Amino acid sequence: MIVMAEMAPSPWRVAYSMSSLAPRIRKHAHCRQTCESRAMKDPSPFEHLRNAAGPLWTDFTGHQFVRGLSDGTLPILAFRRYLTQDYLFLIQFARAYALAGFKAQGLADLRAASDGCAAILGELPLHVSFCAGWGLDEPGMAAEPEALETVAYTRFVLDCGAAGDLLDLYAALALCVLGYAEIGAQLAARPAPGNPYAPWVATYAGPEYQAAAGTTRNTLARLWAERGGGARAAALQATFNTAVRLETAFWSMGWRGAGEAYG
Amino acid sequence: MIVMAEMAPSPWRVAYSMSSLAPRIRKHAHCRQTCESRAMKDPSPFEHLRNAAGPLWTDFTGHQFVRGLSDGTLPILAFRRYLTQDYLFLIQFARAYALAGFKAQGLADLRAASDGCAAILGELPLHVSFCAGWGLDEPGMAAEPEALETVAYTRFVLDCGAAGDLLDLYAALALCVLGYAEIGAQLAARPAPGNPYAPWVATYAGPEYQAAAGTTRNTLARLWAERGGGARAAALQATFNTAVRLETAFWSMGWRGAGEAYG
Amino acid sequence: MIVMAEMAPSPWRVAYSMSSLAPRIRKHAHCRQTCESRAMKDPSPFEHLRNAAGPLWTDFTGHQFVRGLSDGTLPILAFRRYLTQDYLFLIQFARAYALAGFKAQGLADLRAASDGCAAILGELPLHVSFCAGWGLDEPGMAAEPEALETVAYTRFVLDCGAAGDLLDLYAALALCVLGYAEIGAQLAARPAPGNPYAPWVATYAGPEYQAAAGTTRNTLARLWAERGGGARAAALQATFNTAVRLETAFWSMGWRGAGEAYG
Amino acid sequence: MIVMAEMAPSPWRVAYSMSSLAPRIRKHAHCRQTCESRAMKDPSPFEHLRNAAGPLWTDFTGHQFVRGLSDGTLPILAFRRYLTQDYLFLIQFARAYALAGFKAQGLADLRAASDGCAAILGELPLHVSFCAGWGLDEPGMAAEPEALETVAYTRFVLDCGAAGDLLDLYAALALCVLGYAEIGAQLAARPAPGNPYAPWVATYAGPEYQAAAGTTRNTLARLWAERGGGARAAALQATFNTAVRLETAFWSMGWRGAGEAYG
Repeated sequence: MIVMAEMAPSPWRVAYSMSSLAPRIRKHAHCRQTCESRAMKDPSPFEHLRNAAGPLWTDFTGHQFVRGLSDGTLPILAFRRYLTQDYLFLIQFARAYALAGFKAQGLADLRAASDGCAAILGELPLHVSFCAGWGLDEPGMAAEPEALETVAYTRFVLDCGAAGDLLDLYAALALCVLGYAEIGAQLAARPAPGNPYAPWVATYAGPEYQAAAGTTRNTLARLWAERGGGARAAALQATFNTAVRLETAFWSMGWRGAGEAYG
Repeated sequence: MIVMAEMAPSPWRVAYSMSSLAPRIRKHAHCRQTCESRAMKDPSPFEHLRNAAGPLWTDFTGHQFVRGLSDGTLPILAFRRYLTQDYLFLIQFARAYALAGFKAQGLADLRAASDGCAAILGELPLHVSFCAGWGLDEPGMAAEPEALETVAYTRFVLDCGAAGDLLDLYAALALCVLGYAEIGAQLAARPAPGNPYAPWVATYAGPEYQAAAGTTRNTLARLWAERGGGARAAALQATFNTAVRLETAFWSMGWRGAGEAYG
Repeated sequence: MIVMAEMAPSPWRVAYSMSSLAPRIRKHAHCRQTCESRAMKDPSPFEHLRNAAGPLWTDFTGHQFVRGLSDGTLPILAFRRYLTQDYLFLIQFARAYALAGFKAQGLADLRAASDGCAAILGELPLHVSFCAGWGLDEPGMAAEPEALETVAYTRFVLDCGAAGDLLDLYAALALCVLGYAEIGAQLAARPAPGNPYAPWVATYAGPEYQAAAGTTRNTLARLWAERGGGARAAALQATFNTAVRLETAFWSMGWRGAGEAYG
Repeated sequence: MIVMAEMAPSPWRVAYSMSSLAPRIRKHAHCRQTCESRAMKDPSPFEHLRNAAGPLWTDFTGHQFVRGLSDGTLPILAFRRYLTQDYLFLIQFARAYALAGFKAQGLADLRAASDGCAAILGELPLHVSFCAGWGLDEPGMAAEPEALETVAYTRFVLDCGAAGDLLDLYAALALCVLGYAEIGAQLAARPAPGNPYAPWVATYAGPEYQAAAGTTRNTLARLWAERGGGARAAALQATFNTAVRLETAFWSMGWRGAGEAYG
């Protein structure tokens, strides 16, 4: 799930335009070490939630779909299925950022949400052109029914936001943005020669997406402090865990490949 | 999905208390004929939506789970899985009726929604006692994670309501109430001797549930007239069709039986 | 603003039917002492918010409209204006409890909200018959435009709930329920002979309304604990203070008497 | 109320930077004739709503605050009071556009809403610098309590959107954008020499704001067609009329000048 965080810099633009260039991997290996060492001593709310998710988190970040992206063995039909549903997902995710704007308590919240929504909408054409490289056109993707897994995850996030407050929304939202940043960095650290999915990896491993993910991490931390995250940790963890499981189901949906009907 | 419509009479109460009595089936065979003949000459908005759904509707009402309920061959593990998820479903469905109250434009809307919400909450103890007869206790059901299909359908309904108006909400909601009424009447018309699921059938075939479903049909028709249903028919049909597919997926989830994890 | 809290007992029913009986005032004088002494040693979240509101709170509870109710000098046109707007207010307040049901995190929240909504709707006929005694009929009240102050307070509460979580909603909602309980008890402690507004006072001073207000106080305290009220105290206090000022403006609207147009 | 419509062009930017230039008024006199003649033969949904509002509309567009802006006699304290509340208003109006994004049914709706929200947020610094010219600084405006009229109008709009659908939201929203366009064009057609409020007039009369207003008019017309506006005209008119009255009350609040407390 391609998700732009709340700031302007466009992860896709660089990634796609540089997709024929050598990936800048050493930098990210370094970046991961920094993140990990920081997580050890003083976990942010996100690191706290991720660590407490335990095997749910590793099921998500180490899913066979991800391993297939990593070593290039992912069947192309699986990737195409994923890309199509990701297009439909992004439209709902833009709605989630718009919801965050409605729920904003002040200008800082409003700007973060508005930028997040605008970033997704601004990047959709790039996503579409990336998909075109895999033989998918926008009208075809738009006409595809949402998979059960797409409905489940996106509407769960939207409902967490509508029923709860901005912190509840971010607890359901942030793992998507930050999980992709972690996966991108992990895969970039172990490049497979000739991997056809290297441009996808480069996008999420790239400095712009990583910076955007950092902004989301910071917004979550700010909301956690402002809105009593400590006292609400159990409920927020439950939201986070469900969202992780729904993300994992999204990988599985892609892995099963060509769009089966549900029902 | 056990759903009480907007009026007071309690379908469960009679059904459960009379579950050892002979089912009153002939009456419902008559009732179905009445409904069908009416649908032929002047379809209500609900009949219009149902007919236009075509095979999606028959996939739902003729699902193998339903056939298993009809002839008594449904494995008990499948029924228990279904009942547990239905308990979790009902909690979300009560929220959907509460949302309808928030979205009400006047006292008639408000009372219909409030009664619908109160009816579900009032009947939950009866659902729980019914489940107890199948070896399920409430704490166990409450601790069970929602299945992917439960999340998908309930949050889809809630999001249709939050994003749209009361008519959008009812387009996603009504088929559940009315689909169960149709299935109940169909199954009651073909009783299988010694069917262990006869009490379930009797509930939805019973006059109280049928009356409640009629109220929902009428509310949908009123909202359709008040809120421009004709001009919005394509979008409302799309909502209805997705909801039917999600209902069908809910049967499939039950059919697969004991609660597998998703992800 | 006549607001039923989350439990069944109906404050209006007793109050109206006993309005020709001697008010049971001594009991409430005692009740107030109990409340005050409790507030001194261990303030609940509500008492904390009320005390921190300072003069805003006393402007509300000691408004000239309230003093006119207390000594019977309130002009009847002012009372009628108030009753009419209170009818329109109650419809929106029922929507606020419905919203609380949508935002519920579990069955306890759901039942509290559903009962609150049903109680308001159930008592509306009694409110209407009380208004009839003052020469107001329901169609006339329903046709009256909402005053600016009615719009401002009700939509503020609803927006606090939609934008925030259940605790934000209760921070905007609770002062109305509990403020009326405090005013009712205060006025009942100082009865004026022949006061035509004694039945109104008796309603809010009565044991049923007081019990309902106690339930709201407890719900607020539970949500405060569950949802990090301590860390969010400044924002919740700002919501509370604005709501108090909007309540005070509602008294002023009544005080100005016959319905002037705004604009 | 300074409201940017759904497209990029920035009304403020040009208006403020050209505020020392001669206003381009003849063009707008022409523009008004075009609008009026069009409205005669084939009224758009907006013109239909405006015409049906009758004297409510002329009370709004011909308010003494507007006349004071037109001939330059508006007391500066009244203008400052208005500007301060307009700043607070804009923050809520950005939330209303964010809500429109959440309620979007597809990418066209989403982009329109996201652009509208981003435009308001993008122009706030220009609004702030304009206010600075009148002796107001942002921290001072942000610290000012919202006037009763600001709360009433903004929360009414937000609640119309949350309770209804996108068309309900636009019925409450559009008159603000389009009313200011009409007022701007009217005032620009009758310039008063040395009018200190000429820059304000030039902003709303300017081609960029007029174009933005045209986009809002078109969006309302599209939603009216898509979402059954014809069948819902009475309810939408009621929403529109209330919103017009609340806008008029906003002028009155400004007219009364220095910020009195409400309550």
